[in-house]
Amino acid sequence: MPVGNVQIPETIHVIDGVRIGVTAAGVRYKNRDDLVMFELDKHSNSAVVTTKNAFCAAPVRLLRQHVKYAIPRYLLINTGNANAGTGQDGLARALDTCQALAKKTGVATDAVLPFSTGVIGETLNSNAIIAGLDKALGNLAADNWLAGANGIRTTDTIPKVASERCTVDGVSYHVTGMAKGSGMIRPNMATMLGYVATDASIDAKLLQSMLNELADQSFNRISVDGDMSTNDCCVLMATGKASANREDSVIDSCDHPHYQPVFAALQAVFVRLAQLIVRDGEGATKFITVQVRGGKTTQECCDVAYAVAHSPLVKTAFFASDPNWGRILAAVGYAGVDGLDTDNITVKLDDVTLCEHGGLAASYNEAAGKAVMSQEEIVIDIDLARGDASDTVYTCDLSYDYVKINADYRS
Amino acid sequence: MPVGNVQIPETIHVIDGVRIGVTAAGVRYKNRDDLVMFELDKHSNSAVVTTKNAFCAAPVRLLRQHVKYAIPRYLLINTGNANAGTGQDGLARALDTCQALAKKTGVATDAVLPFSTGVIGETLNSNAIIAGLDKALGNLAADNWLAGANGIRTTDTIPKVASERCTVDGVSYHVTGMAKGSGMIRPNMATMLGYVATDASIDAKLLQSMLNELADQSFNRISVDGDMSTNDCCVLMATGKASANREDSVIDSCDHPHYQPVFAALQAVFVRLAQLIVRDGEGATKFITVQVRGGKTTQECCDVAYAVAHSPLVKTAFFASDPNWGRILAAVGYAGVDGLDTDNITVKLDDVTLCEHGGLAASYNEAAGKAVMSQEEIVIDIDLARGDASDTVYTCDLSYDYVKINADYRS
Repeated sequence: MPVGNVQIPETIHVIDGVRIGVTAAGVRYKNRDDLVMFELDKHSNSAVVTTKNAFCAAPVRLLRQHVKYAIPRYLLINTGNANAGTGQDGLARALDTCQALAKKTGVATDAVLPFSTGVIGETLNSNAIIAGLDKALGNLAADNWLAGANGIRTTDTIPKVASERCTVDGVSYHVTGMAKGSGMIRPNMATMLGYVATDASIDAKLLQSMLNELADQSFNRISVDGDMSTNDCCVLMATGKASANREDSVIDSCDHPHYQPVFAALQAVFVRLAQLIVRDGEGATKFITVQVRGGKTTQECCDVAYAVAHSPLVKTAFFASDPNWGRILAAVGYAGVDGLDTDNITVKLDDVTLCEHGGLAASYNEAAGKAVMSQEEIVIDIDLARGDASDTVYTCDLSYDYVKINADYRS
Repeated sequence: MPVGNVQIPETIHVIDGVRIGVTAAGVRYKNRDDLVMFELDKHSNSAVVTTKNAFCAAPVRLLRQHVKYAIPRYLLINTGNANAGTGQDGLARALDTCQALAKKTGVATDAVLPFSTGVIGETLNSNAIIAGLDKALGNLAADNWLAGANGIRTTDTIPKVASERCTVDGVSYHVTGMAKGSGMIRPNMATMLGYVATDASIDAKLLQSMLNELADQSFNRISVDGDMSTNDCCVLMATGKASANREDSVIDSCDHPHYQPVFAALQAVFVRLAQLIVRDGEGATKFITVQVRGGKTTQECCDVAYAVAHSPLVKTAFFASDPNWGRILAAVGYAGVDGLDTDNITVKLDDVTLCEHGGLAASYNEAAGKAVMSQEEIVIDIDLARGDASDTVYTCDLSYDYVKINADYRS
């Protein structure tokens, strides 16, 4: 059961210049959509970030090559099989699917980016994918975001879609995205994929740096179990259609007047998608925001937030609704922050002050602590009191069901 | 239920120059031993290592000061209360207990080292400890190692003792040690303590460097849940009694002919005690040795071993007896080893080759995999095939009971 608000947006804005095709190709299971295709208009820019895991899947290796040589026109995504741990044969099969789609659509092979998610270490049924291409092409439509979000699900319990709009200087911009993932890595199911598109016109280089920043504020700030996937990828696409007739609206630097509103809309979509992954985290019963303030650097705030978010002891305490401040301070203490004085740290759970001066807060009472811990959504606010930097990480608790899901799961 | 062989040694060698006193002081619970005292003869040398956690307990802060100014004569250990997260009052109470023992025994206050383990964040009942000193002093005996190991238990299910002897050049050396701990950190129960003594004569400076090395091969190479305690301490004592009448037997360098045999005996005791902690790990059903070979540096082998040992997905797979090689390779992949080529890695479970060339081994068959995974003790052997360095980490699986123990536990 996902935690809290996981509603599909009332309005999912179409993104002019992006069409999505979905079909049931039978990659692994019959009669469920498992092949999703993005078609991008010419002159669209795309930026990509991929997993930092050295053990990365064949499609990730291949797409890193493809983006060097061509501007992406098609994204080709299959579920059911991650094509990871499959060696040279895996690479050849990923390439086969790209070549087949390129031939059908008249684009360069490099203009097709492959993505796979699902079971690790099994041979990809590339023939099924190739056989499904015509159906997916025939199904291309601008309003297929929700169908696409369902099509990229593996063991996700909900489709994950977010959509925003903003108007600047008479131009109406739209941002829509979808993601999949429900642990940082799935048991054999290689995990997080994210696709976000906007009709803004954004310079290719700037788009990449925006994506890096956006990923660092969203997908790179979540933890379900601290494991990192072999297949994680995120793509940011900008079609430029919203302002196709206006030369001054090419966003080419952070100083461009349209930059901030568009960035804010993108940020909202990225953070929402990332939070949806945590809300749908394996066995999650609580959605926890770990907010660290008063650090000397953003990095040390991030380190502290992750130490707390990764701690199995903190996570089991939240599952048990136990305001166990000793576990939180102990995790802060081992985050590796140089010269940290834990006597100065204040920890709040929402508005309840839990710790101060290295111990239980004088004002703390058990009833208030129990009340806040029984909530489904909790903010852990940690003030390091040694600087002005801050950072935020989203996580969930560690429950019996996490063990159950991961111990029972067998492909 | 602890995993595998956790037998108490048939012979627990007394260490001439070390006497241990044990009593039930009622620090937290009635009618159980909770106060343990070590008395060291004059001219004994001691070395100490303590937790790296910035949030460390009052006794740890105090003993770090004490070892600067005096040679330890007494170690004073209480269970039931960690005296952590207790601020200035906690420091004062720890000091009170040291002063009281110093006064009774006529040693300097600095010659008493305090240790506490138990619940975090509650006021230490220092009066109970002080009131118990006479009984512990009256109870001092050389053969109290097992009673002491029981007296320092908190939620450990077994006492942890190891003992070795060796003879070099006509001198018979003995090493005996005790430890407590059952998670890297206990839910509110602050965790690992280790006390090892030998009757060898070892130069003080060399003793410290030996302890650093020994701890790095034992207590710093185990993981139950990856959390680091606020109270971890380990003391190595050398009384010199075995060779009191021989000047040439002061071990003052690694080149001394007695160094290697004594080091080997110490190593056996340290590694056994560390393994006992893992075998008694919270909820553990399997004892896992993660052995990494073929690295460029020991550090990268250690990083890989810990990434595997910490991975909740690997640990739940072992709980489920699922030879899930994708999870192991994925953990190896995110260990942060620069330029690692996962295609060259070989992973074995005992003598069953699981992965090679970045995928499932051609020779692998499910029956052999199932057989090895159903064992209570498993060696994961990872060959990085890029150098000659190696390292080993000991861990256990992640079970329902881990979550149960840590979610249900409330001080």
